[in-house]
Amino acid sequence: MESGHYVNYMHADPIATVLLGILIILVATRIFGSLAERIGQPAVFGELFVGIVLGNLHLFGIYQLEFLKVDYPGTGVINFADPEHCAGIVIDIMSRIGLILLLFTVGLNTSLSQMKRTGWTALSVAVLGVLMPLTLGWTVGAILLPERHWVVHLFIGAALSATSIGITARVLEDLGRSKSSESQIILGAAILDDVFGLLILAIVQGIILSSGSGPTIHLGQIGIIILKATSFLLGAMLFGQLASRWILRFSEFLHGQRLLLVSGLTFCFMLAWIANLTGLDMIVGAFAAGLILDKCAYARYAEAHDEPRLKELVQPIRDLFAPIFFVMMGLRVDLESMANPSVLMMAGVFLVIAVLGKQACSLGVFSRDTNRWAVGVGMIPRGEVGLIFAAIGRQMEIAGQPVLSSSTFVALVLAILATTMITPPMLKWSFK
Amino acid sequence: MESGHYVNYMHADPIATVLLGILIILVATRIFGSLAERIGQPAVFGELFVGIVLGNLHLFGIYQLEFLKVDYPGTGVINFADPEHCAGIVIDIMSRIGLILLLFTVGLNTSLSQMKRTGWTALSVAVLGVLMPLTLGWTVGAILLPERHWVVHLFIGAALSATSIGITARVLEDLGRSKSSESQIILGAAILDDVFGLLILAIVQGIILSSGSGPTIHLGQIGIIILKATSFLLGAMLFGQLASRWILRFSEFLHGQRLLLVSGLTFCFMLAWIANLTGLDMIVGAFAAGLILDKCAYARYAEAHDEPRLKELVQPIRDLFAPIFFVMMGLRVDLESMANPSVLMMAGVFLVIAVLGKQACSLGVFSRDTNRWAVGVGMIPRGEVGLIFAAIGRQMEIAGQPVLSSSTFVALVLAILATTMITPPMLKWSFK
Repeated sequence: MESGHYVNYMHADPIATVLLGILIILVATRIFGSLAERIGQPAVFGELFVGIVLGNLHLFGIYQLEFLKVDYPGTGVINFADPEHCAGIVIDIMSRIGLILLLFTVGLNTSLSQMKRTGWTALSVAVLGVLMPLTLGWTVGAILLPERHWVVHLFIGAALSATSIGITARVLEDLGRSKSSESQIILGAAILDDVFGLLILAIVQGIILSSGSGPTIHLGQIGIIILKATSFLLGAMLFGQLASRWILRFSEFLHGQRLLLVSGLTFCFMLAWIANLTGLDMIVGAFAAGLILDKCAYARYAEAHDEPRLKELVQPIRDLFAPIFFVMMGLRVDLESMANPSVLMMAGVFLVIAVLGKQACSLGVFSRDTNRWAVGVGMIPRGEVGLIFAAIGRQMEIAGQPVLSSSTFVALVLAILATTMITPPMLKWSFK
Repeated sequence: MESGHYVNYMHADPIATVLLGILIILVATRIFGSLAERIGQPAVFGELFVGIVLGNLHLFGIYQLEFLKVDYPGTGVINFADPEHCAGIVIDIMSRIGLILLLFTVGLNTSLSQMKRTGWTALSVAVLGVLMPLTLGWTVGAILLPERHWVVHLFIGAALSATSIGITARVLEDLGRSKSSESQIILGAAILDDVFGLLILAIVQGIILSSGSGPTIHLGQIGIIILKATSFLLGAMLFGQLASRWILRFSEFLHGQRLLLVSGLTFCFMLAWIANLTGLDMIVGAFAAGLILDKCAYARYAEAHDEPRLKELVQPIRDLFAPIFFVMMGLRVDLESMANPSVLMMAGVFLVIAVLGKQACSLGVFSRDTNRWAVGVGMIPRGEVGLIFAAIGRQMEIAGQPVLSSSTFVALVLAILATTMITPPMLKWSFK
């Protein structure tokens, strides 16, 4: 019997199933990511599309890929003799590591000096551009889902608040305006957006976790959570740059080869783990790690040792893992729920909020020479951070129910996709 | 209760445990890998050492890292609510993906033209250097473990047959002999060694699998297995280069960015998966993929698009995963079993065979100007491929027992480590 078990394992090796899953995801996301870019959309659009298709193959009687749809945690006990179930969980966990690496590279690509250059205008644009969608989302959430906890309404607002810069940057480049003041302001504000978004996420998660003890949440608890989140971020800001330099110096002392990648990932995983210890989401730590890592010291090291830079070393790992995350997200978009008119209506309302909320940004522009209308439109597209909010909201629970129900989740994803579709024509029009 | 389950998950997030495990492995292997290199040993030595230390912490009353020691498959049902067990399995599967990437890069770094240059001498050296340890290992296995199946004896011989070039190359460089004829022959023969080794592995695995039906193995079955393995390799050789080029061309047609990595990994995972389908080990497919991928076409693409080359893109991913494999191997080395004198004796016998077996290589050198003794000594070090054999042998089962028992496994690992330690002084001496 034991030997029979082994034979079974050999012919349905879970690693083979994991590889097959990754292979399908890699090839499909490459194809549809490229196609999305050809029609002027971000690659993540194509990656989500792949997930949606793979997740709804059962509508066409194809069940072979259902194993990818694990919902972990959720099932307490798993039959590990089932290699497909096992492979699904491994791919799911890889997708979450992809998410951590994604946030790390977002942080790495964020230049704090860029933010300083646009200064106060970017800050005021960012603050208005976060507060308005947050308030509008909260209000609409309370109207549409009156039976849910107020944290759910806050969560919807938060998910709609973070701008994704990619598509705007490309359109501005096409229009020859990538060096314009509008472009600089949007870029700076979008970066601050991410920081605010992750701070809000930290706070909302803290509130949800502490609400485990009862339906009411005390103001004191919220204070503690905000204190925790800000002290983590401040502590990371204060000691992080030094720590990242120490890690690099210690690595240098070891004299080995290929130290940059290990030093960088060590720093990223360490902050992610500390964030998790303090009750924050690991992605907050990963983003902070990318943001505050002493880029100058790492760049000098790369140059001195004639090695590729850290960004270039992390990129291939990110490219391998991150698309898995967006596919796993797409898998959760249930096409059948779209047949429900209330879901489409909700998506429409979210889209309106997402568009209107960012128009407040134009009020934050002080200079008269800047096209305010273009700044407001340029801030419309939501992207990775919004999708990550949706994914996290679908997994967290409050009062025994998921924070985002399946239909709210689908409506949010649809609204986020729609924002990236309407931006290019609107932005071109705004410059006329 | 459901909410309580979630709270539990948040504070003991399996991804946090996975990250912590990877973090410990990354940092420790970097430190001990560098230290090993400083004392003139390959980095893999330090990685194994880390694994052995982590795996034997329980001797000092430290049990926090025991979760890394999962033995999968083996347990049928797993409590997935236990995030540590789950993390252990994920890290184990990541280590196996690391192994696949390791073999892919070994293949990528193998230049077929290099092999052609040294030609017949390298071939005869390689053949003798594989046949002798195989025969000696088989014989000694039959003497030491008479109660086991003959396939076990064959497996021990096979594990002792593949040379690892790294350490010899470094010593020859230190001696200023890296361009010498000895060096060229050793390099060419070591590459052929790997090919033969993987072919033998394929055959032995096939025999073990087919023996599931009964204790006796028919010659006909063995014939089928050899046919399968050689036809896979031949098929890969014939169509692989073309296929790798088609994949690249199709990717180019998509116009996206960063196509090289996805094309390369697609080809690697595809061949690994096909190998698994035909009953071979996936690493055979991964190695074949690296070996036959049309390196010229891929290099031209990288140059034309001013992108890093495929090797440089795979390297960071390999660097992240491969050390995990060697640490997981080291974890299985039970220090207590070393207290058993019979294990140390067995290791000593294996070491003698490993050294003597490769001295046959000197008979394969035709030219009188070449230092034959140096060729024989230079072929002594065993490394990655030998260790991989040991790891696979520990997991496969024949007649309800693991092919390599825990003590045989430890003896093999010790003998392999010892070969790399004795080579540098012997090689220096051989040139006097």
